[in-house]
Amino acid sequence: MNTAIIVAAGSGTRFGGDKPKQFLEIGGKPLLIHTLEKFENCPLINEIVLVIGSDQLFSYREIATKHRVRKVAKIVYGGKTRAESVFKGFGVIDSATAEIVAVHDGARPFVTTEEIAATVRKAQETGAACLVAPVFDTVKEVRDGRIAQTIDRANLRRALTPQAFHYDILRNALLASELTEAATDECCLVENIGFKISIVEGSPKNIKITTPEDWAIAEIYFQKG
Amino acid sequence: MNTAIIVAAGSGTRFGGDKPKQFLEIGGKPLLIHTLEKFENCPLINEIVLVIGSDQLFSYREIATKHRVRKVAKIVYGGKTRAESVFKGFGVIDSATAEIVAVHDGARPFVTTEEIAATVRKAQETGAACLVAPVFDTVKEVRDGRIAQTIDRANLRRALTPQAFHYDILRNALLASELTEAATDECCLVENIGFKISIVEGSPKNIKITTPEDWAIAEIYFQKG
Repeated sequence: MNTAIIVAAGSGTRFGGDKPKQFLEIGGKPLLIHTLEKFENCPLINEIVLVIGSDQLFSYREIATKHRVRKVAKIVYGGKTRAESVFKGFGVIDSATAEIVAVHDGARPFVTTEEIAATVRKAQETGAACLVAPVFDTVKEVRDGRIAQTIDRANLRRALTPQAFHYDILRNALLASELTEAATDECCLVENIGFKISIVEGSPKNIKITTPEDWAIAEIYFQKG
Repeated sequence: MNTAIIVAAGSGTRFGGDKPKQFLEIGGKPLLIHTLEKFENCPLINEIVLVIGSDQLFSYREIATKHRVRKVAKIVYGGKTRAESVFKGFGVIDSATAEIVAVHDGARPFVTTEEIAATVRKAQETGAACLVAPVFDTVKEVRDGRIAQTIDRANLRRALTPQAFHYDILRNALLASELTEAATDECCLVENIGFKISIVEGSPKNIKITTPEDWAIAEIYFQKG
């Protein structure tokens, strides 16, 4: 059984609406529905654990019924940090049948079903896999207020999601971590227990919609199809 | 005499117009005019060397007259690469009076006059200065298809422009470089001759407008004022 944990517990209403952004419509559907559909359509994902805010159940039920979400097996309320939200989502997965756990940001609707499948497959083969994109900026390493070097972009990647793991590997990483720590992604936790995570090259289009500028970019992507 | 070399030789017409993007209007004025105004308004910049495409002189004259550009002392046609364009711009600066040379992308209209001044001042004090912004993405170092480590963002910065140098330092760096090489910025060339460049912390708003998505973000910035 392969499970996707989709983290959509954000309460950000910065886009002017009265609902958090994941429930706002873009490209004809709520943002979260776009994301869920990619996992609904991926045969390698058997069930979804959805993490939402404790005051978002009604909003979610409304859009899930309308858009016929089928794979969401469990709904969990998020924690204070992203790591805590993932931990809570992880806690409701049945360890007896668990194989791969793929963690994804609800605010990344542009992931493709193929990218999800490729990441799950790579995790099946190697234990842990991270979808990544190239770094386009010129990045400098700074020491004491001076540029120490320009970092070779050929060896850098931006971590996207999904990030997929054998159940046991993610469990060990979560148990070894402090939930309050500022881990920026699940791969960090798995790296911290010494595991070498495989990468899957993905598209830079798989943006996380956080700011109004991101929302504007997303509208362009939806217009282009 | 402090000189700004503003590189605006791009021929990209991907925004649907018949003119390169630097001549298209946004926020009520051509993009390039927004950029030039920031340098016009900076007392530490004495003259501007503008690098444009060889077929863009008429377009430039038209907007320069209308918007009363005053500090552009010389116009140079760009080369095949960015490095070559900067080299050509550098070549028309009077070495007898030159002090600081600040290189800036014409497609970065959101630099502030204060950021330009701070970068020039830091170059006056230390020889070379680069305007930078934080890295927000989770960046991984990759070796042989696996994540080697998560890079500590506290020590990373994205290089923006302007990048400002004592005339002699930039001259030595340009002479030591191959014009055909893929240097992503002028700091690279100066780093390559062993000089430790100071950083000036700038705003992430100082984006380089390259894609239609960037143009959409720029429109939001101009709407917000």
